[in-house]
Amino acid sequence: MPLYLLALLLCAAAVVAVALIVRLMRPKDDDLDFFYDPNLGERFAHRWGFVDTQFEFAGPKQVRVTGSRYPLCGFVMPNFVPFAEEVLQIPFAPELMAQEIEHKEVTASRLTEAARAALDQRLKPGQVTAEDEDRLIHSHGQLSVDEIYRLLYRGPLERCVDAVVYPENEDEVQAVIEIAVEHDLCVVPYGGGTNVSGALLCPAEEERAIISVDMRRMNRILWLDEDNLQACIEAGIYGMDMERELDALGYTSGHDPDSVELSTLGGWISTNASGMKKNRYGNIEDIVLEATLVTPSGAVETIRATPRNSVGVQPRGLLFGSEGNFGIITKAILKVHPKLEARRYGSLVFPTFEDGVRFLRQLRRTDVLPASIRLVNNFEFRFGQALKAAPSASKKLIDKFQKFFLLKVKGFDPLQMCACTIVMEGSRAEVRHQARTVFSLARRHGGMSGGAANGKRGYMLTFGIAYIREFFNQFHVLGETFETSVPWDRIHTITAAVWEELQNQHRKYEIEGKPYLSYRVTQTYHTGVCIYFTMGFSGRNLENPAETYHGIEHELRQTILDNGGSLSHHHGVGKLRAGFLDQVHSAASTEAIRQAKRAMDPGNQFAARNGIFAAAASGEAREG
Amino acid sequence: MPLYLLALLLCAAAVVAVALIVRLMRPKDDDLDFFYDPNLGERFAHRWGFVDTQFEFAGPKQVRVTGSRYPLCGFVMPNFVPFAEEVLQIPFAPELMAQEIEHKEVTASRLTEAARAALDQRLKPGQVTAEDEDRLIHSHGQLSVDEIYRLLYRGPLERCVDAVVYPENEDEVQAVIEIAVEHDLCVVPYGGGTNVSGALLCPAEEERAIISVDMRRMNRILWLDEDNLQACIEAGIYGMDMERELDALGYTSGHDPDSVELSTLGGWISTNASGMKKNRYGNIEDIVLEATLVTPSGAVETIRATPRNSVGVQPRGLLFGSEGNFGIITKAILKVHPKLEARRYGSLVFPTFEDGVRFLRQLRRTDVLPASIRLVNNFEFRFGQALKAAPSASKKLIDKFQKFFLLKVKGFDPLQMCACTIVMEGSRAEVRHQARTVFSLARRHGGMSGGAANGKRGYMLTFGIAYIREFFNQFHVLGETFETSVPWDRIHTITAAVWEELQNQHRKYEIEGKPYLSYRVTQTYHTGVCIYFTMGFSGRNLENPAETYHGIEHELRQTILDNGGSLSHHHGVGKLRAGFLDQVHSAASTEAIRQAKRAMDPGNQFAARNGIFAAAASGEAREG
Repeated sequence: MPLYLLALLLCAAAVVAVALIVRLMRPKDDDLDFFYDPNLGERFAHRWGFVDTQFEFAGPKQVRVTGSRYPLCGFVMPNFVPFAEEVLQIPFAPELMAQEIEHKEVTASRLTEAARAALDQRLKPGQVTAEDEDRLIHSHGQLSVDEIYRLLYRGPLERCVDAVVYPENEDEVQAVIEIAVEHDLCVVPYGGGTNVSGALLCPAEEERAIISVDMRRMNRILWLDEDNLQACIEAGIYGMDMERELDALGYTSGHDPDSVELSTLGGWISTNASGMKKNRYGNIEDIVLEATLVTPSGAVETIRATPRNSVGVQPRGLLFGSEGNFGIITKAILKVHPKLEARRYGSLVFPTFEDGVRFLRQLRRTDVLPASIRLVNNFEFRFGQALKAAPSASKKLIDKFQKFFLLKVKGFDPLQMCACTIVMEGSRAEVRHQARTVFSLARRHGGMSGGAANGKRGYMLTFGIAYIREFFNQFHVLGETFETSVPWDRIHTITAAVWEELQNQHRKYEIEGKPYLSYRVTQTYHTGVCIYFTMGFSGRNLENPAETYHGIEHELRQTILDNGGSLSHHHGVGKLRAGFLDQVHSAASTEAIRQAKRAMDPGNQFAARNGIFAAAASGEAREG
Repeated sequence: MPLYLLALLLCAAAVVAVALIVRLMRPKDDDLDFFYDPNLGERFAHRWGFVDTQFEFAGPKQVRVTGSRYPLCGFVMPNFVPFAEEVLQIPFAPELMAQEIEHKEVTASRLTEAARAALDQRLKPGQVTAEDEDRLIHSHGQLSVDEIYRLLYRGPLERCVDAVVYPENEDEVQAVIEIAVEHDLCVVPYGGGTNVSGALLCPAEEERAIISVDMRRMNRILWLDEDNLQACIEAGIYGMDMERELDALGYTSGHDPDSVELSTLGGWISTNASGMKKNRYGNIEDIVLEATLVTPSGAVETIRATPRNSVGVQPRGLLFGSEGNFGIITKAILKVHPKLEARRYGSLVFPTFEDGVRFLRQLRRTDVLPASIRLVNNFEFRFGQALKAAPSASKKLIDKFQKFFLLKVKGFDPLQMCACTIVMEGSRAEVRHQARTVFSLARRHGGMSGGAANGKRGYMLTFGIAYIREFFNQFHVLGETFETSVPWDRIHTITAAVWEELQNQHRKYEIEGKPYLSYRVTQTYHTGVCIYFTMGFSGRNLENPAETYHGIEHELRQTILDNGGSLSHHHGVGKLRAGFLDQVHSAASTEAIRQAKRAMDPGNQFAARNGIFAAAASGEAREG
């Protein structure tokens, strides 16, 4: 064969290969939804999620996620354990796994017979329980080290709730509160139990009986107003149920927090939650028009829900972020959106995190924003890669092509590059317009499409993260996510400062192995972004793992505050971060909210003691 | 000439004519701004606006607006008086004009010598005054009948402020408040004095001396953060000044209320204001990130302004809609936007108001919204037409062409058709995308472009409306605008009910002539719209014009509430609408806000008594 023919053939092959890569990477319409029925699976009593889903060893250094609930399930991951060992510098093997404490101690119930009788008289059988297991389940949230790790592997909680009630309507909520006033009980509202702020931890100093009010039975869509695109929904509904039921009616609320499977509408309002698709649908305060908070002094609510108001100070301001301190949120009126015409996933890779941030910042200024766009740093990108299956032979070939193109042709550094996952929603025309804007702007910042499949995978990975925590917990790896909102120009300062401080702390406490820290930008705003950190390190040889962990978390939080970040973007304050509140709100603000509480709850029935009502938030406790 | 040639020629002429019309109506880029320096003109002491701008007679049935401040100025309007006479069925002529009361009585100042001395000691000369004229100016807002009409043509106010102070920085605001606490004075914050809710009317029952704190000297941009697109601005700045100064720095806040020339940043926050371009920039609660409220108990503020928070109940919720009841808003951090790449005005005409509403509703669902889009009903459209100059000969020809096309070819009914004014802003690509979406959707709802010039004229007309009130006031025509937010499916029910009720009331009080009512949709929301009504009727023969007027306004407001509208979309409650608040907020909400006030202002120094603090809002007063 003459040389020129060979050259021509090679050129043709190269063109075909490039075309193939481009084709494989091109984003395409995707209308797959993710609304399974969570009732189709038993939940863990204490740890996150469903019993069908667990990391298990599939070989000496290989793991697999059981079941088929998530895209993460059902295949062997050859790279996950090696990645974890490389990063944390500790070994992972079946024989090193901790044994869960089988018999978990529960403090004795303090509920008086009179109070129990009053509850039994007003509610039906099965609506009141003082069983140990029920009480223990309702005595914590999902705070990793202080709650889950402690409960499973360390020792008992200091204080548990004394009874659990399950009201089925607003009248019953009122009745429970009246009984609580009459018998001087402490009341703690319980939604999905997914908070990571210690909001549900029972105050040890509480001497009255504590009643947990589990709202799960108040889960109905009370009405749907299709003309005005709003719905009134009971606050105990789980996110996944709500979306599945709205979807069946042709609507969505668009609220999609990482915890959507297990968290509730009422919980979202009381923590001022944020959803992954907030660019399109808004955060919870944008989605919820009005809500009802039942307090010992009556219902705090706006009687007329109208599109927008100028009617003095609005009571709804007292509901968002109330964290169970005032009463029980029973229902809310939400905006709903007709079912999507189009949804398209996408992903992008950038040479560096800095490139990705520059791209996000410019994109924000175009005001053309996909429903969700999230940027993970290199560590988190590699973490995501480590959760993949061993590729098939054909996939291996494509992977090699892609890798060659990315690393050799484009010159990306595998220890620097980062990735963006994208969800675009709207009319077909709108999604086209978004895709054009996003991908052309990304190219100008050195970005390349990483394919729709990777975009979808990255978005869905969110739902598997908490199960990874459970896996690590078994090896005494203490980990948690924590988040902040920061101005655009502080992103790199804060991430660098947090990483440096974590290394300092790790050294200071002489912790074995190495610490892990990754982060992603999960939300963009006009003035900045939300940064979501994932942290972990080995606590195996620590005497007081919880104390050490929170000592470190506290220092990292202060580092964030000192560098211009917020105390929390959407996780809330609870008890965990209450000690920082005097750096956030002025004293006069705090006193005004305290007085407002006194009006709503004069007998302090709602003494969950979160935020400004936590012991850590009061001056004496801090000095002591 | 053969017949077929004639036909051909006629066809050609028709094509040219249509092309000409289309060309004339095509929207085009427009970058004209409207940031004059309001200091370039003396303001009226009591009535709205600048002394260079007034309606005056230019002939027996012709008027003209003096000066050159607005596009409305400097030409003869031949149709305005005939339109007014036709609609109101009363005559308008120079000899029927009322004479303004020259010497306006002012109640004696109750400021004690000790308090005056304390103020004089702390502030510089020229910062404290007890002159009658200054006090009278600060004793009212712009409530049409109860304040302006009364003051100019009827009789004195029951109670005036006893001194006016002009603080120049936050320390001085604090000092004034401290003096007020020490000497038990009542303090009323004063911004632009543009409210139409009676918020500045002095409570007759107030026995303490009342100090008006005029914030106009606190008008600086304290800092501009270009990296994070935010600015900290003192609350006394007038809207027009703020926009002019930001514009010089390359930015805009995007807040554009009808009152932007004369209202202030602090006033916007305390009334929860709305701007014409809220689709792009948001209402005031979206624009203002954080603000500082100085109260007798200290500053209510968030110490760290970060992009988004989950840090418990947020103090900013207490500021929006506070209406002077808690303290003085001294500064705010606002989002700012880099100067526009493109702005384009546009207008549309629809066969009927119903068509226009259908179009708006569909447009809202596309999520492609121009910065401003407002729909005026037929009456208001004709009102706008009546404010035009006599056309030139060439313009007359074009008008005739347009009219012929609209009425004969398209079959529009001049007594049914309505119009939309549009302002599109953003990048060039974004404006193009908006224009495509808007105009193609409009065509599907029977709409036709009415040209960019008409769009701009309609948008700018806003600034002339208040001067029209002054003109009518001179003829004892009592008029006011009032607004509400309503769900999409109640728009026609509410407008019809208000019109019917107005006619009933007009008959009931045996008022001469006919009542006028027009309305426009000024804002669209996911769940509904803002309807802005303009009402007027002759009060010449009424014994108690103010009482009658407010009796009628009260009934119309109740009609709106009964049909699912809100108490106010952005004007606020003040004293005018306080009696309705128990239909809006639950008792427990109100009590929580009352208690919050007690924490901030234990001595009730801020006793302007607006909203839930007004006499009309308390049960006793309502029953009495």
